[in-house]
Amino acid sequence: MSFDTPIDRRGTHCVKWDAMESLYGVPADTGISMWVADMDFKTAPVVQQAVQDMVDHGVYGYFGDDSKYRAAIQWWMRQRHGWDLDPAHIFTTHGLVNGTAMCVDAFTAPGDGVVLFTPVYHAFAKVINAAGRRVVECEMHQTDGRYTMDFDAYDAQMDGSETMVVLCSPHNPGGTVWTRDELQAVADFARRHDLVLVSDEIHHDLVMPGHTHIPMANIDGIADRLVMMTATTKTFNIAGSHSGNVIIADPDLRAKFGARMAALGLSPNSFGLFMATAAYSPEGAAWVDDLVGYLDGNRRLFDDAVNAIPGLKSMPLEATYLAWVDFDGTGMTREEFTNRVEQKAGIAANHGPTFGTGGESFLRFNIATPRARVEEACARLADAFGDLQ
Amino acid sequence: MSFDTPIDRRGTHCVKWDAMESLYGVPADTGISMWVADMDFKTAPVVQQAVQDMVDHGVYGYFGDDSKYRAAIQWWMRQRHGWDLDPAHIFTTHGLVNGTAMCVDAFTAPGDGVVLFTPVYHAFAKVINAAGRRVVECEMHQTDGRYTMDFDAYDAQMDGSETMVVLCSPHNPGGTVWTRDELQAVADFARRHDLVLVSDEIHHDLVMPGHTHIPMANIDGIADRLVMMTATTKTFNIAGSHSGNVIIADPDLRAKFGARMAALGLSPNSFGLFMATAAYSPEGAAWVDDLVGYLDGNRRLFDDAVNAIPGLKSMPLEATYLAWVDFDGTGMTREEFTNRVEQKAGIAANHGPTFGTGGESFLRFNIATPRARVEEACARLADAFGDLQ
Ligand SMILES: Cc1ncc(COP(=O)(O)O)c(C=O)c1O
Ligand SMILES: Cc1ncc(COP(=O)(O)O)c(C=O)c1O
Repeated sequence: MSFDTPIDRRGTHCVKWDAMESLYGVPADTGISMWVADMDFKTAPVVQQAVQDMVDHGVYGYFGDDSKYRAAIQWWMRQRHGWDLDPAHIFTTHGLVNGTAMCVDAFTAPGDGVVLFTPVYHAFAKVINAAGRRVVECEMHQTDGRYTMDFDAYDAQMDGSETMVVLCSPHNPGGTVWTRDELQAVADFARRHDLVLVSDEIHHDLVMPGHTHIPMANIDGIADRLVMMTATTKTFNIAGSHSGNVIIADPDLRAKFGARMAALGLSPNSFGLFMATAAYSPEGAAWVDDLVGYLDGNRRLFDDAVNAIPGLKSMPLEATYLAWVDFDGTGMTREEFTNRVEQKAGIAANHGPTFGTGGESFLRFNIATPRARVEEACARLADAFGDLQ
Repeated sequence: MSFDTPIDRRGTHCVKWDAMESLYGVPADTGISMWVADMDFKTAPVVQQAVQDMVDHGVYGYFGDDSKYRAAIQWWMRQRHGWDLDPAHIFTTHGLVNGTAMCVDAFTAPGDGVVLFTPVYHAFAKVINAAGRRVVECEMHQTDGRYTMDFDAYDAQMDGSETMVVLCSPHNPGGTVWTRDELQAVADFARRHDLVLVSDEIHHDLVMPGHTHIPMANIDGIADRLVMMTATTKTFNIAGSHSGNVIIADPDLRAKFGARMAALGLSPNSFGLFMATAAYSPEGAAWVDDLVGYLDGNRRLFDDAVNAIPGLKSMPLEATYLAWVDFDGTGMTREEFTNRVEQKAGIAANHGPTFGTGGESFLRFNIATPRARVEEACARLADAFGDLQ
C-alpha cells in the first residue's frame, strides 16, 4: 500500500467526494475533489490494526481505563513536539470543532468578542457566531509569501469586549508555521488584552522539512491563560472518529472546562480512543514521517505548476496539505476565476471568503491525494487559465 | 456464534469488567461483573460487517450524506414500534447522556426544576445537577411488582419552578413497560405543569414477550412539548460508539435544540452512523429477536433463582436486561447485604441509592451475559444468603 494507490471514495458517505457536485457543481464522475480537509489515503497500518482488533473482539461496550490513551498522548507530545504535558490535563472532546465550541461556551459570555487572525479555518467563526459571541477579525498580511501579524493594528482594534483569541498553529489556510517570536507576540497580545488563548494545533504533525512547529505550551508566560488543542484526526486521517484533545494546565480554566463537559454529558467514543492509542506510537510516527515526505513532494509539484500559471500564486506551504492559491493576479472577478476552476477545470476547492477577511481572492486546494491526481489537477488548471499571459 | 459463547472482556478497556475491582472490591479474576449497562455479547453480524467494511476501505474521513442513516431510523421506528417519524426531525447526539444534557441545556435555565420519576437511571440526575438545575424527585411505588406513579402526590409537589420532566420508557431500573394509560398520564402531567417531556426510549427494543412498548410520540396531545430519544447502542451493544438520536417534531423545540447543537459544534462520528445504518435493517431485526429470546430465558432463570432466596425479591422484568433486586426482606443494613453480594458472592452490581429516592434497599444486576454466568451468579447469591430462612 503506497500513497500513490488511488482509492475510490465516491459512494462511501464521504462528504469530500459525494457533496462535490451539489456544493460546487463539479461533476461526480470526472471531477477532482480538493476541498474538505481529509486525505484520500488509508490511515496508518497500526491504526487499521486497532480497528481490526475491535472487530475481532466484537463487543463495542463502554470504554473504561483510559490511562494508556493518556500516556500515548503524553509520549507523542514529548517525542514529536518536545512538549511535556500532564496526562491529567487532557479532556477528550467530540473533535476540535466541538473543542473550540466548548472553549467558547466555558470561557466567554454571550456578546463577548472572540479574536481570529483571518483568513482562518471557517468553523471557528461558525461556532462563535452560533453561540451568540462576536467574531473580531484581525486581518493578517503577507510578507515574503508567509502570513504575518500586525499587533499595533490589532491593539488599536480592541475595545475591551474581547475575552478570547483562537490561534490556528500551524495556520490553516496557507500553512504558516509560526516562529517562536511570532508565538511570543500572540501570547503577549493575549496577556495585554486579558484574553484566554486557544491554540488549535491540529495540523502540528504535518510540517514540511525545514520547518519546526513550536507548541504554544512551550512559550513563556502564557500557561495561566492557555488552552491547547490537538488531535490524531488530521495526522492519521481519521476525522470520522470525531475525537480531539483539549489540554489545559491552568487549574481554574481546567475546572471551568470540566464543569461544562460534565454538564453537557460529554465523554469520548471508544473508536477514537483505541485509534489514538495505536496511532501515537513508534509505528505511527514512522508512518507520519513517510506521509509528510509524500505531502512535501505533492506541495512542491503543486506550487511549481500553479506558480507557472500567469496570475496565480500558491502560498508556499510550511505545513498542512491545504494549498492557498491567490487568483488576484488574474484580474478576474471572483465569480470568473471560481467558475474556471469549477466548470473548466472540474475541481472543487474551498472558496476563500468563507475563511474571513483577506480570503476574497483565494481558493484552497487540498493536495492530500495521490500524486497523479495532483498532476492532473495542475494540468487542468494550466488549461483553464491557459489564455492568460 | 451463540449468546452462550463466553467472551473474556478483561483487559479490553471495558469499564464493566476492568473497574469492577477498584469500584466494588470484587476480585478481577474470580468476580462476576453485573453493573454497567452493556452486554457481554458480540454485536449483530450485520453491524460487525459494517465495521469490517470500514476497515477494508481504510479511509476514515468526514462523513457526508446521511440520508440512508435517517431512512434506516425511520424504517426501524415504523417497523418495530409503529411510529411514523420525519427523518428531518432527527438530531444525532454523542449518545443519550449527552442527548439528555443537551435537552437540559436547550430547554431549561439554571435553577429550574427537572422532574425525575425515581428510582431512575443515575446519569439523568448527574447531568441535571452538573448543569446547575435542580432534580425534583417524584418517587414511584410498586403495585403488583411493577413501578407505578402517583400523580396526585406529584401535582402537590410541584411549585411552578419545574420546566422539564424526563421519563425513562421502558424504565431503568426495574424494566417497567409503561401502558398507554400510564403514558397518557405522564403526558397530561407534563401539560398541566407546562413541562417539556423528554422520553428516553433507549431500551425500547429489549421488551420481553407479552409486553409491548408504546412510543410516547404515539400518545395524544403531547407532540408540541415532546422530545423523543432513541439509540442503537443498548439494542445492538455498541455503546462505545457514543451515538444517540434526539427526535423533535415540534418546530420551536427543534429550532432551540438545533441552535445549541450548532453552538456546541456537535456532529456525529462516522462509526455510529455506519453501525446504525446497518443495524436498523431486517438482518438487525432478526438478531434482536434472537437476543430478546435469550434475555427472556436469562431473566426467568435469574428471577426464579433470586426469588427462591428468602428475603430477596427481583422485580419481574418487562423490558431491559437490568434486574432490580430488593434486599429489604433480609432485614439487613444496606452495608451488610451489599457486602455479602460483593465480598461473599463476588458480584459487582449497581448500588440502589445512586438511582435516587426509592432505591435504598436495592441492587441492580445486569443479566446480559452468557446463561452459564447468570446461573453461577444465582448459585453464589443463594450461597451468600443461604443462612436466611
Ligand atoms: C484548524 C482546524 N481545527 C479543527 C478542524 C476540525 O476538527 P474536527 O474534525 O476534530 O472537528 C480542522 C479541520 O479542517 C482544522 O483545520
Ligand atoms: C435510560 C438510559 N439512557 C441513556 C443511557 C446511556 O446512553 P449513552 O450510552 O448513549 O450515553 C442509558 C445507559 O444505561 C440508559 O439506561
